[in-house]
Amino acid sequence: MLSVSTNKQPQTYHHGDLRPALLAAAAELLAEGGAATISLREVARRAGVSHNAPYRHFADRDGLLAALAEEGFGELARRMDGEGGGLAALGQCYVRFALEQPGHFALMFGAALDKARHPGLQQAATALHERLALAVRETAPGQDPQVATLAAWSLVHGLAQLLQERQLSEAMRAGLSAAELSERVTRLFVAGL
Amino acid sequence: MLSVSTNKQPQTYHHGDLRPALLAAAAELLAEGGAATISLREVARRAGVSHNAPYRHFADRDGLLAALAEEGFGELARRMDGEGGGLAALGQCYVRFALEQPGHFALMFGAALDKARHPGLQQAATALHERLALAVRETAPGQDPQVATLAAWSLVHGLAQLLQERQLSEAMRAGLSAAELSERVTRLFVAGL
Repeated sequence: MLSVSTNKQPQTYHHGDLRPALLAAAAELLAEGGAATISLREVARRAGVSHNAPYRHFADRDGLLAALAEEGFGELARRMDGEGGGLAALGQCYVRFALEQPGHFALMFGAALDKARHPGLQQAATALHERLALAVRETAPGQDPQVATLAAWSLVHGLAQLLQERQLSEAMRAGLSAAELSERVTRLFVAGL
Repeated sequence: MLSVSTNKQPQTYHHGDLRPALLAAAAELLAEGGAATISLREVARRAGVSHNAPYRHFADRDGLLAALAEEGFGELARRMDGEGGGLAALGQCYVRFALEQPGHFALMFGAALDKARHPGLQQAATALHERLALAVRETAPGQDPQVATLAAWSLVHGLAQLLQERQLSEAMRAGLSAAELSERVTRLFVAGL
């Protein structure tokens, strides 16, 4: 992540450096207070540039949020690249990402951004779905791939949400950590395919 | 549901009628604009009673929201009572409830309400979990009941969220309705247990 100046003097960026600086400032706001705290004005202030500078890269606030969500899909894809591709490992990676990057996760999979209006975001979501579908087909060639892929996605999406929203009492967790629950739940699912 | 007067003249309720009238007004606000639009003052206005009247039944706004969430658990339990108890049917019932009562669903399973501070709500959530666990044990006596119950819950919770947040493109849905997806996904899961 770029370091962001807290200096209020407008800064000048080399061509190509402004967009990452704006995204880094927006990611800070996202991590601190969620998407509701992000405005183009505040992002400009954080990045130390003029109020109008963000418009060189983003049409509006939604465009900036979509770029953040796309970054999230990119980060999730890189993490999954390191997992070797087994379905259970991909699922555990998904849950871990949700717990470590809840702000990005909410933007990526929430209704606030209409993916039909952001082709890059739609493409990133489709690529994630295709990666899961490929792993499902390799694991369970006999299953209906679309239903099995949706089941696999639902399983890890739901587990991530229940953990994020602190819905699991100690008894429901059987004393297990999030990582242990994620491992056992995904393994149970894959064994049943 | 009680019909709610829009008359601004303070009304008097018979003993026992005020609480349901306040909950009915709050449920209307929940359905119209989500939990963020609910205040004790606005609920009192809708129910046609004085600003202070809600405090006869609810300590604060959180207490009212917890009562709404408890109502939601009660409604979901009644719906499940009509389903005969098979695990796939219970799961489909859960998804249908989420799509038909998104406001209640968000209160019931969101972090906004700390269940540790609302014993009745905690009890309702535990009862739902126990109902799922019982169905899991009947379906798959050989599985670790806690892991399998969490997997079943995660599956339907995630599917409900992905549908609510409109994350499934036409291609991902394979042209199927929410009810059809829910049926196929829960059946696939139960068959694998």
